[in-house]
Amino acid sequence: MHDYYHYLNLANEAIENIYYPSEPSRLYEPIAYTMDLGGKRIRPVLTLMTCEAMGGDIDQALNAALGIELFHNFTLLHDDVMDRADVRRGKPTVHCKWNDNVAILSGDAMLTMATQAISRVGDDILRPMLTLFNTTAIEIYEGQQYDMDFEQRDDVTVDEYIKMIRLKTSVLLGCACKAGAIISHAPDEAANAIYDMAVNMGLAFQLQDDYLDVWGDPATFGKEIGGDILNNKKTFLLINAMNLARGNDAIELNQWLNDNTSRKKEKIQAVTAIYEKLGLKQLSRDTIAQYSHKALDSLHTINNIDQEAMTEFENLINRLTNRDR
Amino acid sequence: MHDYYHYLNLANEAIENIYYPSEPSRLYEPIAYTMDLGGKRIRPVLTLMTCEAMGGDIDQALNAALGIELFHNFTLLHDDVMDRADVRRGKPTVHCKWNDNVAILSGDAMLTMATQAISRVGDDILRPMLTLFNTTAIEIYEGQQYDMDFEQRDDVTVDEYIKMIRLKTSVLLGCACKAGAIISHAPDEAANAIYDMAVNMGLAFQLQDDYLDVWGDPATFGKEIGGDILNNKKTFLLINAMNLARGNDAIELNQWLNDNTSRKKEKIQAVTAIYEKLGLKQLSRDTIAQYSHKALDSLHTINNIDQEAMTEFENLINRLTNRDR
Repeated sequence: MHDYYHYLNLANEAIENIYYPSEPSRLYEPIAYTMDLGGKRIRPVLTLMTCEAMGGDIDQALNAALGIELFHNFTLLHDDVMDRADVRRGKPTVHCKWNDNVAILSGDAMLTMATQAISRVGDDILRPMLTLFNTTAIEIYEGQQYDMDFEQRDDVTVDEYIKMIRLKTSVLLGCACKAGAIISHAPDEAANAIYDMAVNMGLAFQLQDDYLDVWGDPATFGKEIGGDILNNKKTFLLINAMNLARGNDAIELNQWLNDNTSRKKEKIQAVTAIYEKLGLKQLSRDTIAQYSHKALDSLHTINNIDQEAMTEFENLINRLTNRDR
Repeated sequence: MHDYYHYLNLANEAIENIYYPSEPSRLYEPIAYTMDLGGKRIRPVLTLMTCEAMGGDIDQALNAALGIELFHNFTLLHDDVMDRADVRRGKPTVHCKWNDNVAILSGDAMLTMATQAISRVGDDILRPMLTLFNTTAIEIYEGQQYDMDFEQRDDVTVDEYIKMIRLKTSVLLGCACKAGAIISHAPDEAANAIYDMAVNMGLAFQLQDDYLDVWGDPATFGKEIGGDILNNKKTFLLINAMNLARGNDAIELNQWLNDNTSRKKEKIQAVTAIYEKLGLKQLSRDTIAQYSHKALDSLHTINNIDQEAMTEFENLINRLTNRDR
């Protein structure tokens, strides 16, 4: 078993070595550009880590890891068109640097390239890999659609929100781990347990993201504090606040949600104060801890990995769900 | 062996029976809407016809036929966004009826659903089916990108144009036939020959489309005559004309290409006259006949289908490449 950075290097190397045809350049250059933007590469690392922890051949896992990272970047590419996002990882997004049509078509090609990479496994595991990958892809589209639907709704429940982030972001972490398990020919129970571990870790990670937007340390968070509040983004916090606020709190929250003036600092302070009054700081911490424990519990049911691997996964869960950036 | 309409009914029945989850409705309703718009269903028919002609089990071919039709409709959905087309088959396109985001995301889901349908075959042919399908998909994106590139270029050659329509439209007809052959466990030579037949038939079909826009009978063509001329669309005719016109012809053609006034009738008449003066009516007919003969030649090399099936395919080639609508 190696540490996180060993797998990260392997993943980055595989990404750098992707072959892109030279023509038509406006189809392939945006794909190379997107894959070169960088990122945490958490998904391919999970595939490689799981494969090695469960005794699989890591060379066989590289293509699947690549396929999952291609898929993830395809979703970001199309999401950026849908969200009209201009910047990703400090660089112009594809639809800004080229145009919408290039972004749509390059994204389509990335999805097929992802499927091709996922399929580069032994015949004996081709079907389970495809089933896992395609099922996960459909779930992610559903999650993205729910996310867009929620922006138009004022009655989203906390359960609906959890379901949405599960679909939109967590299942791909589950897929990444389970792919590594399948490549190792691990027993179904182990494959399903590592899937559950990753899904719960993903939920804790996303809730932590919502938390850090409000209570993160500006010095380490990387993004500006309060961005979600300024955008009225339906996070775990805002949805809880909309459901829990009564009387003057509800009136004040509503006023701030409809406030389009430039009183940015005041809005962030006021909404944060409402969140704190409603006990949402503690509720967030408790909920994150709850999913983080579920992830650890799932991990501890697995009996085909050794103590060293167990510790690596524990460290990963703790790092991703107690992070400050 | 049955006739075309038998396979068409089977394909339409399978399309009507596709299961769509009820939620999220804005993801699945646009897919059902797109699949219900109708169309010639030529691709699924080709899969079913080839499968039965080569002695395969037609029930096994239905999912592949469905997958190819889902894929085809996914490309139309995304192409309509890219081309800003408002109407398809007499109804509003998805991005007009809903919006661009819905069209992008529903299209993505259709591509994954297509891959799922293609994968519903026996384990022994899963890999060749996937390889065929994914390779074809990549070729189609390349064709669409070349098509968009060509609109910005004035120096497109006839060979480049043929390559583009081969990628954008013909290879999917080839894929449809070859899928039927693979499902029948046909020998490679037969599978490749029926692929070549369909690709050449597709080229003849597309060139016929360009021809009918200029010399079709308005009563039977279905579309308005001269639409390509009015849009300066880079068809087989315009590309040849731009390469062949000299002196006054070249000057006049250029003037019409830059003419944005409302003299529609005059433009169609004048450009048609230039095409005729350059001998492009005959060149078109000859080129269509050439690809149509290539299709028949490929067909006649196949020795695992009987005379009745041979005649059905001959009729199909003749119908698609000598059509007047």
